[in-house]
Amino acid sequence: MDFTPPRFVGGPLDGNYFTFTGMKPLPYPSTFRVFKATMAGFPTLNGQSVSYAVLEFPNNTVNAPHMHPRASELFYVLMGSLDVTFFVFPKGLVHFQFNSDANNAALALSAFGSASPGTVSVPNSIFNSTIDDNVLALSFKTDVATIQKIKSGLSG
Amino acid sequence: MDFTPPRFVGGPLDGNYFTFTGMKPLPYPSTFRVFKATMAGFPTLNGQSVSYAVLEFPNNTVNAPHMHPRASELFYVLMGSLDVTFFVFPKGLVHFQFNSDANNAALALSAFGSASPGTVSVPNSIFNSTIDDNVLALSFKTDVATIQKIKSGLSG
Amino acid sequence: MDFTPPRFVGGPLDGNYFTFTGMKPLPYPSTFRVFKATMAGFPTLNGQSVSYAVLEFPNNTVNAPHMHPRASELFYVLMGSLDVTFFVFPKGLVHFQFNSDANNAALALSAFGSASPGTVSVPNSIFNSTIDDNVLALSFKTDVATIQKIKSGLSG
Amino acid sequence: MDFTPPRFVGGPLDGNYFTFTGMKPLPYPSTFRVFKATMAGFPTLNGQSVSYAVLEFPNNTVNAPHMHPRASELFYVLMGSLDVTFFVFPKGLVHFQFNSDANNAALALSAFGSASPGTVSVPNSIFNSTIDDNVLALSFKTDVATIQKIKSGLSG
Amino acid sequence: MDFTPPRFVGGPLDGNYFTFTGMKPLPYPSTFRVFKATMAGFPTLNGQSVSYAVLEFPNNTVNAPHMHPRASELFYVLMGSLDVTFFVFPKGLVHFQFNSDANNAALALSAFGSASPGTVSVPNSIFNSTIDDNVLALSFKTDVATIQKIKSGLSG
Amino acid sequence: MDFTPPRFVGGPLDGNYFTFTGMKPLPYPSTFRVFKATMAGFPTLNGQSVSYAVLEFPNNTVNAPHMHPRASELFYVLMGSLDVTFFVFPKGLVHFQFNSDANNAALALSAFGSASPGTVSVPNSIFNSTIDDNVLALSFKTDVATIQKIKSGLSG
Repeated sequence: MDFTPPRFVGGPLDGNYFTFTGMKPLPYPSTFRVFKATMAGFPTLNGQSVSYAVLEFPNNTVNAPHMHPRASELFYVLMGSLDVTFFVFPKGLVHFQFNSDANNAALALSAFGSASPGTVSVPNSIFNSTIDDNVLALSFKTDVATIQKIKSGLSG
Repeated sequence: MDFTPPRFVGGPLDGNYFTFTGMKPLPYPSTFRVFKATMAGFPTLNGQSVSYAVLEFPNNTVNAPHMHPRASELFYVLMGSLDVTFFVFPKGLVHFQFNSDANNAALALSAFGSASPGTVSVPNSIFNSTIDDNVLALSFKTDVATIQKIKSGLSG
Repeated sequence: MDFTPPRFVGGPLDGNYFTFTGMKPLPYPSTFRVFKATMAGFPTLNGQSVSYAVLEFPNNTVNAPHMHPRASELFYVLMGSLDVTFFVFPKGLVHFQFNSDANNAALALSAFGSASPGTVSVPNSIFNSTIDDNVLALSFKTDVATIQKIKSGLSG
Repeated sequence: MDFTPPRFVGGPLDGNYFTFTGMKPLPYPSTFRVFKATMAGFPTLNGQSVSYAVLEFPNNTVNAPHMHPRASELFYVLMGSLDVTFFVFPKGLVHFQFNSDANNAALALSAFGSASPGTVSVPNSIFNSTIDDNVLALSFKTDVATIQKIKSGLSG
Repeated sequence: MDFTPPRFVGGPLDGNYFTFTGMKPLPYPSTFRVFKATMAGFPTLNGQSVSYAVLEFPNNTVNAPHMHPRASELFYVLMGSLDVTFFVFPKGLVHFQFNSDANNAALALSAFGSASPGTVSVPNSIFNSTIDDNVLALSFKTDVATIQKIKSGLSG
Repeated sequence: MDFTPPRFVGGPLDGNYFTFTGMKPLPYPSTFRVFKATMAGFPTLNGQSVSYAVLEFPNNTVNAPHMHPRASELFYVLMGSLDVTFFVFPKGLVHFQFNSDANNAALALSAFGSASPGTVSVPNSIFNSTIDDNVLALSFKTDVATIQKIKSGLSG
């Protein structure tokens, strides 16, 4: 099923901002994508302690394990179906979402109790970083070759 | 346009909880309605500082002026079109939403930066309360008859 | 009874600042008045999480329904008698005070647990605002003529 | 000048609670006294982040150096004259008030930005405690006899 | 170099609790170890917003990548030498420490700005969990065999 | 016993910063000293809610009665022996530490749950201040001569 998700469109923040523009067929998105309405993009959120993210999952894609250091997350599936472990992802808890459907995309909306919840992606913060291969091999109780294999996949 | 909004369905909080169940035609809702996912209904939200409300607006209905004493609100229109004054409603600010479309319903989702944001409805807290008619007449600089007319409409 | 309330007088914030200057007869105040010692007027309160207001009630006057979005209020009657609902007005709760005495003024002092408690007056925020008459008529379940009558009284 | 201060009287917390009962002559209070409206005596203050104290100063009395560990204090002289260093006493700052008038009493009201501000009296916490005389002599760079003289005065 | 670190010893929390018991030679510790003084073990820390951990690093050992969801960490090397990236590890930031010395142990002390800082170990929360192998392979952009190799090393 | 305590040395905050430089004999420190790692000296601590102090106690010295207005303190003896009343010193509580050993120095480390805990020394804030001698004599229930004797010892 193709879809046109309700999304944040350009233009001034007036009464028309949120108008839903239809259900016309759209090309499949090709990768998992996140659109954030956080303080970085909407400075007016400063001091309001709340923010949003819209998450698009093409068929068979994953939002890789990550956590948010400054806010809990409330997750709401708007369209399609997703494998998740919880309704609420507490601050600092590692979590992921997976669209295991081979044919259909999914769409979700996340609310955060902070205007700047932050995101720490586990694959990137560990294997796409400057941490020494020996330290990682010791930490994951494996050999350096395995560490280097994962690193090359992520940086490729 | 009729619609089946994505909504909180019964059952345990497992991976199927959020599955969207389709776009089948539905009878129009007949009044403005709010479905809340706050600490009162979901005790697991205790301590997480975030909550949701789903708002259904039949054609030509209003979410009357109100404010939330314990959280700012982030408002997101999922379907249809609504007259609103802001993207963000700061904590304690009186606000409303109006579906001025004569024919079409609208659907929105609100996120709050508290598990228990609270809602103070202005019409009810003032004119559906025990405040004396004379106090209200003095406060609104009008006569007691006008106060009583509004009271009877709201309690009717 | 006439009175000279203890009040914030001009001059530098030195040791004489609070000297009470007497109980001389004074002309009645003619309207309800509030004198605030909040961060707006006393920037030194920044970061201290506390502020004051002195409230003067001539006979038969009201402090119209309002609420404070950022602090609870502790109310203390210094002179005269006032009709109030509570000793403490929690943050975000709509409240009022009424001097129902036909002959005597009253004086009160309010403490707030914030240097900037804020005040939202219900009559002004609703009927002295840009909210459309139709939205208000729908919200208060009355007709547009009644809305316009209240609006003209408050703006007069 | 004798006075009857407005004060917290017994009875239920209803609308009459704060009624001021007159300006009848009263015997001088004989010592400095504090009447607190904090969470310990008014459990309803729990969660409201605000409290009061009423302070009575007979002529030539002192509220000895002390500090409040959990709230800043806003000080307001209702009657008489007091020697104070500041308008606001920040959380944790040691401060005092002195009625240097040889003939007249004074009355003040303090507001705190906490329902439980706490009070640490310097004389009592140091010299009316179990701290060893040698530790105090080393700390105040004096001899043990001087420490013991102060201790006996405070405990007498 | 062998060492006897200052450490939390058994017994009641009296004045002798912290007495350092000497610098006698000790057998090498054989693995990295952490001794925590947090709310879980010391309930008296409840409400104090501070806690400690003592970390023992035998030669060539690592405190694997991890983060603390509820507090920043201040790190202090008492003995030996450690490879670290920062002086302060902010709340939610993934970090590690490595004793790269082939012959000597090291000892460090960490302070946290919470009585219950929490610890999320990256290797365990990802590869010693119930997350499906396919989700991990997609997330780390590698094959299922590599995922299973790492899992078996950590669980072994 | 002479000692070289692990301490904050000069230079940039890199991986060598914490290297312990040995246990060489050192001359006794001659007075009680505190080395602080708080926001004033390490601006990077801003927002991290944690800080350290290293305390050196020569034989028979005292850290005079004081309190920290913005954080609780967790105390850890690294070397020697100290007379203390508690393991944890809550925010705002007056406390002291005493090395009663006639021959040996002691070394301790304190962690605070704030980057800027503040310190209020009782002797200095009371007897090395501008508070009038009469106010102090009234407060400590002693004579002016005793107040002046203590003042001269502290300022000497």
